[in-house]
Amino acid sequence: MPEPILFYDIPCNNAQKTWSPNTWKTRYCLNIKGLPYKTIWVEFPDIEAVSRKIGATATEKEPDGSPYYTLPTIYDPNTRTTISDSAAIARYLDRTYPDTPRLIPYETDALHAAFNHAFRGIILMDLARIMIPATAHCLSPRSKAYFRATREPIFGTKLEDVAPPGPKRDESWDRVKKALHTLTQWLEADGTTDRLFVLGDKIGFADATVAGFLVWIRVILGADSKEWTDVKTADGGRWDRFMEAFGKYEAVDAGEDVVL
Amino acid sequence: MPEPILFYDIPCNNAQKTWSPNTWKTRYCLNIKGLPYKTIWVEFPDIEAVSRKIGATATEKEPDGSPYYTLPTIYDPNTRTTISDSAAIARYLDRTYPDTPRLIPYETDALHAAFNHAFRGIILMDLARIMIPATAHCLSPRSKAYFRATREPIFGTKLEDVAPPGPKRDESWDRVKKALHTLTQWLEADGTTDRLFVLGDKIGFADATVAGFLVWIRVILGADSKEWTDVKTADGGRWDRFMEAFGKYEAVDAGEDVVL
Repeated sequence: MPEPILFYDIPCNNAQKTWSPNTWKTRYCLNIKGLPYKTIWVEFPDIEAVSRKIGATATEKEPDGSPYYTLPTIYDPNTRTTISDSAAIARYLDRTYPDTPRLIPYETDALHAAFNHAFRGIILMDLARIMIPATAHCLSPRSKAYFRATREPIFGTKLEDVAPPGPKRDESWDRVKKALHTLTQWLEADGTTDRLFVLGDKIGFADATVAGFLVWIRVILGADSKEWTDVKTADGGRWDRFMEAFGKYEAVDAGEDVVL
Repeated sequence: MPEPILFYDIPCNNAQKTWSPNTWKTRYCLNIKGLPYKTIWVEFPDIEAVSRKIGATATEKEPDGSPYYTLPTIYDPNTRTTISDSAAIARYLDRTYPDTPRLIPYETDALHAAFNHAFRGIILMDLARIMIPATAHCLSPRSKAYFRATREPIFGTKLEDVAPPGPKRDESWDRVKKALHTLTQWLEADGTTDRLFVLGDKIGFADATVAGFLVWIRVILGADSKEWTDVKTADGGRWDRFMEAFGKYEAVDAGEDVVL
């Protein structure tokens, strides 16, 4: 049994504690593979310092060209390797632990990259408009202040004004549902309706990507929200069955807070 | 040996006669599978009448909701089946002739649909701005007049004014090259540079889609054009090697003109 992988995730105040669509992708991957891991909880303002400390590579750039660090990141003590970005982590885990369920089969590697481009393209902006302001309310005061300072410039407005209840928010939500329906059309492109997962009958990384976006809705807006009901009943109940299948990969360990 | 499939394609005046990126996808599929077929040449204004005659399904809708027929279409006398749309044709051929090279492996079916969405999204608009006006000059007078009448409303301007030589055309072409580079990044997402085809070492339908767009450039602008040189030298010569691999699947039969 390998030593536990350290998995750096961002906490929120809700019961389940983990909410980020990007870190959820990695948690699903670790749980699907059954690899031992320990969550290290990192508040937003500490992500850069932690990333530098453990030798993570910046995944993006700030507008001024300086490095921008994001989570998820893992540190694998078995190989003394630090990896950031959920897709890179999935590829690393597939390569390093070949006896665990493969999430990106060789033949599908480039197609997975294209899927990520396509699916983010159809869902991210509208989902973010709804979810980012709602997420802010669930963060610790420190993370909330950081989140506000970094996200408000992206939207060009106060978080409270990004998607207040009303027709514009409803239009964004309608486009999220439309994006899910487009995904359903991809899943049914072969003329059948029985393909629950992107690869067919087994879960792959593309599914973890979708589940990461969906669980974000459930965790932040709540399982009894109108939005979650919409997700569960859309496309003939497909997404309810889909998330039920992910249910057994949603274990969250207590973990520990990062020490800087 | 099955009876020859009838393959409905659109002619142009160039030596190779066939130019459409969409029908090329199907020609590549038929040639890769080694299935006997005969090309039936159809001028643009005749596509709807031919499609109705052979019982094709409209692939799109006109703005007013009426059916819009496109090529490629095939009629397979062995199964008495008419199929339109290059992706649907590829799936039909995979299903009906399982002993031929499979172009959309089961595991990749939904990913192929997502790939099509993603790749069209990054390349189509800019490539069309350059290629559609150039294509018009290579069509028969009847097809050219039809092409002009149907395409000019899409661009909102005369074809000659869509992308005349100058900075705006150059910007479109730069975005086409950028799209190819994005595709290269998908192919190299696993950190290697040796994946020539989307599925790895064998050609699949996603590659036929890419080759269909690229051969359009070569046929219409010419193998000695600046644009084709750009394609061949981009991304370390990757697309030159890619199109060389497709070279053995570019046979074009004499075929015959459609009789209405």
